Amino acid sequence: MAEALRIGIAGLGTVGASVVRVLSEKASELTRQCGRQLVVTAVSARDRARNRGVDVAAAKWFDDPVDLAKSADIDVFVELIGGDEGPARACVKVALEAGKHVVTANKALLAKHGVSLAEIAEKKGVLLNYEAAVAGGIPIIKTMREAMAGNSVTRVFGILNGTCNYILTRMEAEGLSFEDCLKDAQRLGYAEADPTFDIEGNDTAHKLSILTSLAFGCKISADDIYMEGISNISQADIRAAGELGYRIKLLGVAQQTESGIEQRVHPTMVPTASVIAQVHGVTNAVAVETDILGELLLSGPGAGGNATASAVIGDIADIAKSRPGFQHGPVFGRPAKELKPYKRAKMRAHEGGYFIRLTVHDRVGVFAAVAKRMADNDISLESIVQHAVGTEEDATKTVILVTHETTEAAVRKAVDGITKDGHLTDKPQVIRIERAG
Amino acid sequence: MAEALRIGIAGLGTVGASVVRVLSEKASELTRQCGRQLVVTAVSARDRARNRGVDVAAAKWFDDPVDLAKSADIDVFVELIGGDEGPARACVKVALEAGKHVVTANKALLAKHGVSLAEIAEKKGVLLNYEAAVAGGIPIIKTMREAMAGNSVTRVFGILNGTCNYILTRMEAEGLSFEDCLKDAQRLGYAEADPTFDIEGNDTAHKLSILTSLAFGCKISADDIYMEGISNISQADIRAAGELGYRIKLLGVAQQTESGIEQRVHPTMVPTASVIAQVHGVTNAVAVETDILGELLLSGPGAGGNATASAVIGDIADIAKSRPGFQHGPVFGRPAKELKPYKRAKMRAHEGGYFIRLTVHDRVGVFAAVAKRMADNDISLESIVQHAVGTEEDATKTVILVTHETTEAAVRKAVDGITKDGHLTDKPQVIRIERAG
Repeated sequence: MAEALRIGIAGLGTVGASVVRVLSEKASELTRQCGRQLVVTAVSARDRARNRGVDVAAAKWFDDPVDLAKSADIDVFVELIGGDEGPARACVKVALEAGKHVVTANKALLAKHGVSLAEIAEKKGVLLNYEAAVAGGIPIIKTMREAMAGNSVTRVFGILNGTCNYILTRMEAEGLSFEDCLKDAQRLGYAEADPTFDIEGNDTAHKLSILTSLAFGCKISADDIYMEGISNISQADIRAAGELGYRIKLLGVAQQTESGIEQRVHPTMVPTASVIAQVHGVTNAVAVETDILGELLLSGPGAGGNATASAVIGDIADIAKSRPGFQHGPVFGRPAKELKPYKRAKMRAHEGGYFIRLTVHDRVGVFAAVAKRMADNDISLESIVQHAVGTEEDATKTVILVTHETTEAAVRKAVDGITKDGHLTDKPQVIRIERAG
Repeated sequence: MAEALRIGIAGLGTVGASVVRVLSEKASELTRQCGRQLVVTAVSARDRARNRGVDVAAAKWFDDPVDLAKSADIDVFVELIGGDEGPARACVKVALEAGKHVVTANKALLAKHGVSLAEIAEKKGVLLNYEAAVAGGIPIIKTMREAMAGNSVTRVFGILNGTCNYILTRMEAEGLSFEDCLKDAQRLGYAEADPTFDIEGNDTAHKLSILTSLAFGCKISADDIYMEGISNISQADIRAAGELGYRIKLLGVAQQTESGIEQRVHPTMVPTASVIAQVHGVTNAVAVETDILGELLLSGPGAGGNATASAVIGDIADIAKSRPGFQHGPVFGRPAKELKPYKRAKMRAHEGGYFIRLTVHDRVGVFAAVAKRMADNDISLESIVQHAVGTEEDATKTVILVTHETTEAAVRKAVDGITKDGHLTDKPQVIRIERAG
């Protein structure tokens, strides 16, 4: 049997502790699967004294993760520190430069520095694996990087943030407000004390930017993503969506268009009868559409210590099965030096269907004015629903429009026009509709 | 750059022609992804003169696939002949013994001879890849073999036959009979002239037997599978399922139980709100439940030239990225010589919920008799639905029972008892219910 693979782990939080525990509990099974032992020989974390429920006494302790990263005691460096700069970046760089394989779960780091780190890995002939960075336990990186060889991707989209999906699922199931669901999510540990990064779409955008690079062979560009969060979604939207045969999900979508690549994160109406519409709670899902394979969808746990550890261990096992002299596939599917510049498609050029919810004064001529603004912008309507709301004195109406395929520019112009007409009693709501199988 | 990978393809039907075409059309992209060229250097098929819409003139022609398999002109042998014996088996064996990597889409061959072929591959240090053999374009083999390292699988189940799922989908959507849907499927090329192999579950069983080995580390045992097809499913079942919040799918299920491994293929009620219930038409899906990752589901095209070619090319690309001296992971996840014997769990010991549809005489005491048979066998009921059917002179009633978790043995005894009581006017229908997320 080959020599044991020596693993150094930096960061012993929930995921790190799970990785250590599973490597120990499943040691003999992993040895059978990989043809060699996987041994944690070194660790680093902030607090040496903390009880993590796992035994790391046999591993060499490093106070500084950068020292661990370049240590002669390890073959693989596992980065579970987090953050796009600071120690995480420093030690991944050092490890790669020292010729160590690297496994990381750090989406922020990859979104910002993935391409330059991949260049180092490819120059050094080592693996940089990051399955856990996108959609937790779902093997979407392996699928896109390996299984889809030769496929040209046309679109990739998914539910990439468990917090948002949990909130939207509960809003629909229980009729609760966004605020109440967020509070509950925080209480249950599904949302951070400061939830902005999740609910405004940044976390989804980081993950999407990595998938975009894998899908289209371009450099990662996480700053160039159109982003809308879910904090404006109301019960009125969720109920209207249901009546029209849709469900609202926060999707990240990347799509090849004639004018460039669209990367967008926003609340999205998907058909209730689609597979992705049934992805509830903290579960994640990713769908990929290609010219040869067609549409593939993967769903599973997007977060959590064990699910994330499963992805990290899959990455480590792939390294264990490789041997010196093995020429690895490129980190982002194509050699990092050959990744094309990212060419952003303008959001105004986005084409698709739209859901538009207007709260209007209940008076003669309002509906005609709305219809005219649509017609003036060449927007044809698939359906119109009208509800009376409010008391008789202060009567308002809700008008819900679903458009056929049109452009973002046309919809914005039409909605701006309606706003200027002075018929609205509340902010207009616009939600994009996405095709989904 | 490394030397070109030389590919020999035996079998130039729909899938073979797609593989040749994609390798040619995507040549430069594949070279970028794999770090070397992929070249079809030799082919073999039954009829050399046939026009396949692809150019194989540059490849060396072999009349006998066995000669191709051992030819010095190839590094990888791609078997697309089909069949569990004859030339397919002979040439895969010869290729492996000659130290060639093998890619095959042949589920029947693997179901019967997979373990002995894996032993040869592992002895010779070559890859035996078979992603296309199960669920077409869905990368379930790669997922279970590589991404789930260290996970202990508790259950794997899926929609593995597109013909059956197409028929069941149309029966539900259009209210058509099984026979009418089958005829249409045959007309559209989704079902064979002799559809027995698909609709009676054999095809699903072959694929399931491979997943079972990957899931539980046991030898493949395709002959030991409990099997019921879909030809007995009626509109009455489909409508009743819908009313109760279920949808009927032909599932293959493998599950670890206390008394052994259950392998079963049968029409199954899954909750309408589950992801797998939304898998329509010829689409396939596989769900895997493990101790660490949790539940993962993959859905996508289960058949078709292009989708299958995509899986074959992914397998070839993995081989292209490997290099001499690379120690490959085992063919079925664990070394073939260490695969445990398959220990079959008795079907009578199966535990789960059951849907039971009875057509009974409309007379006093029938319902009490049915209820007594259930109680006598310790079966508790979750719901009971009763419909009057037929004219007043010839009045019958339909009684639909949904049980809580019970055993197959208890249900069979209860239904036998009800049959003996003489109240039934038609054959009783029993459909198992499966938990699904």
